[in-house]
Amino acid sequence: MRIDRAALADLARGAAFLGSGGGGDPYYGLLLAEAAIARCGGFDLIAPADLADDALVAPCGWIGAPTVSVEKLPNGGETVAGLRRLEALMGRRIDAVLPVEIGGGNGLAPFVAAAELGVPVVDCDGMGRAFPESQMVIFNIRGLSACPSVLTAACGSLAVIETDNNLTHERVARGLSVALGGIAHMVEYPLTGAQARQHSIPGSVSTAIAIGKAIRTARTERRDPFQALAAALGDSGLYPHCLTLFDGKITDLERETRGGFSVGRVTIDGFGDGGSRMEVLFQNENLVARQDGRVRAMVPDLITIMDRETADTITTERLKYGQRVKVIAASAPSMLREPAALSLVGPAAFGLGPDFTPIEILNQGEGA
Amino acid sequence: MRIDRAALADLARGAAFLGSGGGGDPYYGLLLAEAAIARCGGFDLIAPADLADDALVAPCGWIGAPTVSVEKLPNGGETVAGLRRLEALMGRRIDAVLPVEIGGGNGLAPFVAAAELGVPVVDCDGMGRAFPESQMVIFNIRGLSACPSVLTAACGSLAVIETDNNLTHERVARGLSVALGGIAHMVEYPLTGAQARQHSIPGSVSTAIAIGKAIRTARTERRDPFQALAAALGDSGLYPHCLTLFDGKITDLERETRGGFSVGRVTIDGFGDGGSRMEVLFQNENLVARQDGRVRAMVPDLITIMDRETADTITTERLKYGQRVKVIAASAPSMLREPAALSLVGPAAFGLGPDFTPIEILNQGEGA
Repeated sequence: MRIDRAALADLARGAAFLGSGGGGDPYYGLLLAEAAIARCGGFDLIAPADLADDALVAPCGWIGAPTVSVEKLPNGGETVAGLRRLEALMGRRIDAVLPVEIGGGNGLAPFVAAAELGVPVVDCDGMGRAFPESQMVIFNIRGLSACPSVLTAACGSLAVIETDNNLTHERVARGLSVALGGIAHMVEYPLTGAQARQHSIPGSVSTAIAIGKAIRTARTERRDPFQALAAALGDSGLYPHCLTLFDGKITDLERETRGGFSVGRVTIDGFGDGGSRMEVLFQNENLVARQDGRVRAMVPDLITIMDRETADTITTERLKYGQRVKVIAASAPSMLREPAALSLVGPAAFGLGPDFTPIEILNQGEGA
Repeated sequence: MRIDRAALADLARGAAFLGSGGGGDPYYGLLLAEAAIARCGGFDLIAPADLADDALVAPCGWIGAPTVSVEKLPNGGETVAGLRRLEALMGRRIDAVLPVEIGGGNGLAPFVAAAELGVPVVDCDGMGRAFPESQMVIFNIRGLSACPSVLTAACGSLAVIETDNNLTHERVARGLSVALGGIAHMVEYPLTGAQARQHSIPGSVSTAIAIGKAIRTARTERRDPFQALAAALGDSGLYPHCLTLFDGKITDLERETRGGFSVGRVTIDGFGDGGSRMEVLFQNENLVARQDGRVRAMVPDLITIMDRETADTITTERLKYGQRVKVIAASAPSMLREPAALSLVGPAAFGLGPDFTPIEILNQGEGA
């Protein structure tokens, strides 16, 4: 599949949904990718099956607080600087790139790289959504190393990290992102083609494009974009269940930038006289949604807050008092619901209690 | 000059004094260096004049809070791992090493490297004492770059930093040292032989050895170690003035680990009925000494608190209520008193007012 500007805009819209509130606002990532395509031309989205076993595949994305990313803009050269340094470290050229996380602005990150380096993007990612910490990735769940990784920042600074475990890597990279001003580009988990094929969420990039296209088309044809979204998720095979959890108005918001993350909670009051209320907790990404005290969705299932008219995703750093929103939940890719994955990306990993319950169980009997 | 175990012990004692309270306790650095010499044999201390113009000279030391360094011990391999990586980055072998700062444990850091790598230590350093921040070094004052630098930590983690200015480098390296657990080994400001010769404090290593030897000999011969210290400083040519500022007992201490530094103040009450009191402020190193409100010494002049019986230096992280101490001041090497240097290492750099006044002016008419 050839990636052009139209596909990029759909991707940005779909990646925003898959970000589950995080991954950074895709707007600047889209501008960067569009500029790169205008300068260097388009490139291909290839299937993981098309990778040679010994190919060098570079996952890339941004690390830091999304609240910072909307005020401190990239200089545009971070991605290429990081990838070129990885090539120097590995002593060979990069054959393909992929998003560490498909969610949010990070879903766009490798598209800048692909245009600039003239390499394809692989149709897969490491999270199938967005997660706040870099070890919350299928590559780590499957025992691969994050290192060597390369961080690059808008000030022109560059750092190479080597650690012997991925949790230390997250801590070091997070500390570095704070020291570099709160946001940095990171190339990490350099993969062989065989590893990228076996240990990634397949099809997530094309699914993001399909989601974005479905919402765009529904709007143009004056159909309900939320129905179109649910249909696209169902068609993907990756995210089989989708539910509208809540419909209301944001009446309270607590949000702070702490330890390199945007953390907080948003309160949404339902329309009408019922007096029902939903509360969503987030750490960069939305983690748990409770309605009147009852849990209706929890990480790693996706929880995305969207404008109730346009179906535009509202990332956690864009939440504001008074916004009219729908809260949409989608089931996580099955690889993220396996026990080994849940210990790293489930509710326990966020201090939210020991057990994960899928949205289709939590909301049994309730329609989409 | 051949460096053996006896010289190392003298060096540790002298470096502790030159640390001005900081640079880390030399005890562990001494153990590491002794072990390295026992394993690999001794090595030479060479004069800067002996360096080839195009030699590769690697300054090394530790970055972090000294309070952490006494509880979180090195694994012993940090120094060599960092230097080997620098060699890989520069594409050549290191010809000699030197201490970034002669003060405290950092004065010992390159001695581990010299034994392990079989290269000489150059008789010079970057600070002539210890300073809390890595850009407070003559290499930076003279416009040289800190990069590439290599940080290594006890957990086995390694990071390479490249920045385009040395203040950003300090911020990034400091953030990394915190993320790595509060302390890390750092190889920075890779120098040519010509640069090391022109832009360093010459003779500081042999001066530290001479100071340590003078104190040791005085103790053995039951002479006053403080007189011996003053004589050794005078003989060095580097630190011409030396004064005993105060003699008393520690009656109060505020100290916290903040932003990767040990910061605080210590209060010392004089003996006898006079009721005189000295207060010393520190940020890793002692920065200013005030007696009853009057400034008696200020950075970059050296202020060292020593056990009043043994003349053992008490580093800032070892200060305790009740210790009987003398506060000794020594004039900084003249390179540090030049205007360009004072803007980076003088009182203004620490928010302590605009003007530097040398101890020999502040204490005119008062004897040593």
